Amino acid sequence: MSSSIDILVVGSVAFDSVETPFGKVEDVLGGSAIYFSVAASFFSKVGIVAVVGEDFPSLYLEFLKEKNIDIGGLKKVKGSTFRWKGKYGFDLNEALTLDTRLNVFQDFRPEIPERYRDAEYVFLANIDPELQLRVLDQVENPKLVALDTMNFWIEGKPDKLKEAVARVDIFVINEAEAREFMQEPNLVKAAKKILSLGPKTLIVKRGEYGALMFHGDSVFSAPAYPLEFIYDPTGAGDSFAGGFMGYLANTRNAEDGVIRQAMIFGSVMASFNVEDFSLNRMKYLTYPEIERRFREFKKLCTFEDIT
Amino acid sequence: MSSSIDILVVGSVAFDSVETPFGKVEDVLGGSAIYFSVAASFFSKVGIVAVVGEDFPSLYLEFLKEKNIDIGGLKKVKGSTFRWKGKYGFDLNEALTLDTRLNVFQDFRPEIPERYRDAEYVFLANIDPELQLRVLDQVENPKLVALDTMNFWIEGKPDKLKEAVARVDIFVINEAEAREFMQEPNLVKAAKKILSLGPKTLIVKRGEYGALMFHGDSVFSAPAYPLEFIYDPTGAGDSFAGGFMGYLANTRNAEDGVIRQAMIFGSVMASFNVEDFSLNRMKYLTYPEIERRFREFKKLCTFEDIT
Repeated sequence: MSSSIDILVVGSVAFDSVETPFGKVEDVLGGSAIYFSVAASFFSKVGIVAVVGEDFPSLYLEFLKEKNIDIGGLKKVKGSTFRWKGKYGFDLNEALTLDTRLNVFQDFRPEIPERYRDAEYVFLANIDPELQLRVLDQVENPKLVALDTMNFWIEGKPDKLKEAVARVDIFVINEAEAREFMQEPNLVKAAKKILSLGPKTLIVKRGEYGALMFHGDSVFSAPAYPLEFIYDPTGAGDSFAGGFMGYLANTRNAEDGVIRQAMIFGSVMASFNVEDFSLNRMKYLTYPEIERRFREFKKLCTFEDIT
Repeated sequence: MSSSIDILVVGSVAFDSVETPFGKVEDVLGGSAIYFSVAASFFSKVGIVAVVGEDFPSLYLEFLKEKNIDIGGLKKVKGSTFRWKGKYGFDLNEALTLDTRLNVFQDFRPEIPERYRDAEYVFLANIDPELQLRVLDQVENPKLVALDTMNFWIEGKPDKLKEAVARVDIFVINEAEAREFMQEPNLVKAAKKILSLGPKTLIVKRGEYGALMFHGDSVFSAPAYPLEFIYDPTGAGDSFAGGFMGYLANTRNAEDGVIRQAMIFGSVMASFNVEDFSLNRMKYLTYPEIERRFREFKKLCTFEDIT
């Protein structure tokens, strides 16, 4: 029996308040599960498992439905939706968190609806590794599982995180966090140590410098697209993961060549996402625009071999 | 009449004392003109214009001659050779300068020997822009001139630097310095402003993240090679420039496709250079190794276009 969705994502839904040198927004739609699923929706059918509060407007639910995202696993509970407030300086590389209110996210215990359990692709967005393990216990023999995390869990629950990482196919992490996790300043050595934990593939996100993939003996460097207008980097990493997983689920293939293309589709989605606040750019993004930017990435990296 | 050299480089020769987390060396051969010319020597015939003191050992001169570098313009004068002392932390991205003794470099006034003046390729390494202008006045109609600089001159002599940049074909600069020079935090905007000053091509060096080239409407991203063993980043930028210019001078062509390959050869030479202190790796480097790493760069960046 085939699942009703291609990709299951478990993560956060949030109201973000963000200030960058280019503007300011308050209580806009955000959260890892949202950025991921909207980016992935251009390629595949996604189902979300997450939690929101009573204050979550139906307007946002409509937006997700328009993107053909299955929101049957998006639970509304008593209380307020998770809120994050942050600020970026001119370099846009690191967010300064001004305020975090977990609210209903505090007691989030993901329960995977029956009809999501045989999803072939699973993305465990950045949440408590104990919850990520709980999801892994509920899904039925997925074809490919990817997991994201952050320094908070590396420092707070390193053993649980290692246990979760050992059970997934693809581990996605920021560069500084990869080094921190393995306590190894050299990235190539840190990558080898991470792969020895279990995952077949490691993706290292480097912000405005793109991303690196380590997969067996294969190393692939995906550049970031040099943009003249970057308004808000919030959600870039999850948009990357969404484009990446969306393309993989669409091709139903995880050969080296396909993973490389998926890395570029991920980079394409991240590059669109940062062009506006919240998911505003995604609202009017079209698939032909995605293909056009993919080809621009191709031009950006192309050089002839020596003969 | 054809020049006896392919590339003229004007820059510094130094004794470097360097400490990294992987070791420590004292008074070893360094300086921009040295790193540049040794890297370029694998591709083309280079002539150096620089100054050393009486303490400069003939052993080093022998090494340069072995690399087929023309040292007729390397002037030995009374006094001590330029000395630089620096330290790198674990991230290896930025050097902490502990001591700088200009010594004979203080009074360096480049004079281009007659037989170097019709060199078709000229590299103005990072020196006072007034001296770079002085060199430009002495050379006779070169085919291609590239210029490097640093924050010291951006802050101290911005107008002279702009005057020099306007007269060259290729401007090479670090990312943070490109932003600082144009007082523009967005790199793409800063690149456009720099190109409007006059040069046809801008190369932005990004350390361990590679380099970007802006050339008309063409943008090219060259990755850095992810290395497991990096011992000393000193001279990486000048080695990059040497590989880049060396390849261009060898092909005698500056079309977009050739410049892209030259960017990769530059990255290849930088990647070898950081594998040991001083120019130690260059001593036993062979051309087949250079070609092999070029092909590894090709693998690192390759992905299939979408159909």
